[in-house]
Amino acid sequence: MINESVIGELQKIVGRENVLTTTENLKTYSYDGTSSWIHDPDVVVFPKTAEQISGIMKLANAHKIPVTPRGGGTNVSGGSVPVMGGIVLCTTKMDRILNIDKENFTATVESGVVLMNLNTRLAAEGLFFPPDPQSFLAATIGGIVAENAGGPAGVKYGVTKQYLLGLEVVLPTGEIINLGGRTVKNVVGYDLTMLFCSSEGTLGIITKAELKVNALPPARKTVLAIYDDVATAGENVSLVLTSGVTPGKIELLDNWVIRRIEEVSPLGLPQDADAVLIFEVDGMAEAVEKEAEKIVEVARGHGAIEVRPAKDQDEANRYWMARRAGFAMIFGKAPTVLAEDVTVPRGKIPHLIRKCRELAKKYDLEIVVLGHAGDGNLHPSVLTDIKNKEHFARAEKAVEEIIETALELGGVLSGEHGIGLEKQRFFRRALGSTVTDLMKNIKALIDPNNIMNPGKIWD
Amino acid sequence: MINESVIGELQKIVGRENVLTTTENLKTYSYDGTSSWIHDPDVVVFPKTAEQISGIMKLANAHKIPVTPRGGGTNVSGGSVPVMGGIVLCTTKMDRILNIDKENFTATVESGVVLMNLNTRLAAEGLFFPPDPQSFLAATIGGIVAENAGGPAGVKYGVTKQYLLGLEVVLPTGEIINLGGRTVKNVVGYDLTMLFCSSEGTLGIITKAELKVNALPPARKTVLAIYDDVATAGENVSLVLTSGVTPGKIELLDNWVIRRIEEVSPLGLPQDADAVLIFEVDGMAEAVEKEAEKIVEVARGHGAIEVRPAKDQDEANRYWMARRAGFAMIFGKAPTVLAEDVTVPRGKIPHLIRKCRELAKKYDLEIVVLGHAGDGNLHPSVLTDIKNKEHFARAEKAVEEIIETALELGGVLSGEHGIGLEKQRFFRRALGSTVTDLMKNIKALIDPNNIMNPGKIWD
Repeated sequence: MINESVIGELQKIVGRENVLTTTENLKTYSYDGTSSWIHDPDVVVFPKTAEQISGIMKLANAHKIPVTPRGGGTNVSGGSVPVMGGIVLCTTKMDRILNIDKENFTATVESGVVLMNLNTRLAAEGLFFPPDPQSFLAATIGGIVAENAGGPAGVKYGVTKQYLLGLEVVLPTGEIINLGGRTVKNVVGYDLTMLFCSSEGTLGIITKAELKVNALPPARKTVLAIYDDVATAGENVSLVLTSGVTPGKIELLDNWVIRRIEEVSPLGLPQDADAVLIFEVDGMAEAVEKEAEKIVEVARGHGAIEVRPAKDQDEANRYWMARRAGFAMIFGKAPTVLAEDVTVPRGKIPHLIRKCRELAKKYDLEIVVLGHAGDGNLHPSVLTDIKNKEHFARAEKAVEEIIETALELGGVLSGEHGIGLEKQRFFRRALGSTVTDLMKNIKALIDPNNIMNPGKIWD
Repeated sequence: MINESVIGELQKIVGRENVLTTTENLKTYSYDGTSSWIHDPDVVVFPKTAEQISGIMKLANAHKIPVTPRGGGTNVSGGSVPVMGGIVLCTTKMDRILNIDKENFTATVESGVVLMNLNTRLAAEGLFFPPDPQSFLAATIGGIVAENAGGPAGVKYGVTKQYLLGLEVVLPTGEIINLGGRTVKNVVGYDLTMLFCSSEGTLGIITKAELKVNALPPARKTVLAIYDDVATAGENVSLVLTSGVTPGKIELLDNWVIRRIEEVSPLGLPQDADAVLIFEVDGMAEAVEKEAEKIVEVARGHGAIEVRPAKDQDEANRYWMARRAGFAMIFGKAPTVLAEDVTVPRGKIPHLIRKCRELAKKYDLEIVVLGHAGDGNLHPSVLTDIKNKEHFARAEKAVEEIIETALELGGVLSGEHGIGLEKQRFFRRALGSTVTDLMKNIKALIDPNNIMNPGKIWD
């Protein structure tokens, strides 16, 4: 499939220095943010322009070589693992911020720009990109768009697709196309921009994105609330939202995380607290004060055992660092972690958490629950070890039951991590055959030789 | 094509009382909110369930009969005019609000629900559906989704697609499918919900929608600002937005509208004012006060000749009634109005308005400019008479130049009205052949016999 002549062609297109073929180099591009899949590509290329990518795609299409797009490699459902070998097309050298239009509240960026770098540049103009996948230190815009990334800010600000105005894409057949535009209002035929968003790299290579950005809110305030019953915490989420306050973030930590926090960097949380919610409100200073007061009032009046409005930004930072450390602590406590990503209608959060506890008992497992309570997107994480077959089998069964429960509660298979390799086996069951086949037919229309990230999403 | 036997089959599916065939009845369903196209259907049907629609589609598909979906018939680009005859499928009897989930901030509605009725029901629960097409008195959710409707609130709240979580759709081949879900975060394969949104009725019949709704803001405040130069008004829009205030609405009226308002229901606006901006901020009372003060400060400090914060809701209502009357006044002043719907990056608003003035002189026409300045979506309206061929030809030339100017400024063909019949001739030029053909191929995949609203979007 990939012979010396193809390598030579690739070198001609992007330059010798942008083609990697040594074993050590290929290993580096064989995995992503998951721990379950590893597969070496045959070659890794680093194009710098859409024209170079067009050349690569024409070559790959002619030879029917699989192409797996990759940015920072931070994705967590196997999307950038080249399971069929072939070419890994790495966009990290396409990292220019082409334009920040402060009057229009838009940014034009190449797909290899790291989110953190974009937000640093935007901050200098008083702007920010609201979706906040927690991989922002390395995640690139191309991957963020291809996975329709979310994050804690979803409750107020929504997800990537709400900030995606236009795209430049190279199709599997090599054509370079422009979709969408630079305006929020745009109804000109089918919304193909949205088709490429969340397509997980299976329809083409995203080379450029036009993003809507917001003005940085002048003030923010954090409130931490402690509960002796997670159901009360779940109810508090709804009560706050219906009070007219829409916090930027509402994060939930369960007892397991609370105890780890107290071991590592104590915040003085009660060891037996069942759940903690961390709220952040942002906006104009006066509104933020009022909104924080409202949250305190709701939580105190509706069952929180303790409510702590952060008295300054230092205290707020400590709360948020504890939240961010949560995931790291989970991964530090087990060789393998199955980090679920189901999403349920907000009112069903207590039901899902209760089920996770039952499953932990039923399968004799540790299941940690944390996540974005404000939008129903939870990450129940099952601690296991892929090398301990018996244990891992129990963990996988628990995950299946978590997913089934989420679907029964009116939720979805994946809120923000995508399907990739992780959830293929549930896909057809969740969407039904007509819809699955419709998606596959659209894929076949755009990628007739099935070279774009093959082996992902569906079986 | 449509013979007695087909009519008989339709009567069997929906009942005799839900099939119209008399000449007078067909005339009623021959037009929409535009004034340029009229075409009788052969029959009008009023299904009540997705199953009935499935039966209709199977019949139509077998006989290759065109089907044009229609809700309130308020659309303004010819989308619901049955230009190829056949069946008009009217959803107005599918008007049930099936569920309002206050905890999850979602509403499940049939596609024939009128937006006004939905908002009345939502208001009783302290909720609202933010996109606000000004046809809300009659526009139905099906049409609002199919056109991805916008409105004044776009600046803060975005457009319909940002509030569309899931759909039930009947495909042209009769299958009933469910897309999306009930959560804001949802990445499960391609986003086909977004493919049907803004598809202008060409891919299937929308029967049910799952909508995200917001909590009603507890307070709002209106500020009116008067300018002697529309360029200053345009700059003020950007200055307010970059100050950190995002008003719910920022509407612009030009001198023509200002003079008409003073004739009909005087607000005491200077007759020679070049432009008026009306801002509305909404949110918590304290924030709203502060935000309104900020707008006043920005406008006074940056060239407004007069700034009037509405002292109470009565005064605010008078300003907004004047704004709403604007369109009606335009339509009252000419037999035919070509109401444009281009959208430009916000910073380009003054350029577009200046061009409209040049064109008014060049073609000796009245061109009125009003619209949603906050999101760059303007409605330059050319006053003409379709029966006066020479005048109408000049008007059409002016419209072409307005569109070309918008595209040159980085804008789009249509912000919120859609392509329909109105802008077909510009479509391929605006999007290019690869993208146009890609859309047509997706259409052919889903609707192999081209029965769904044929003759629309592209030539």
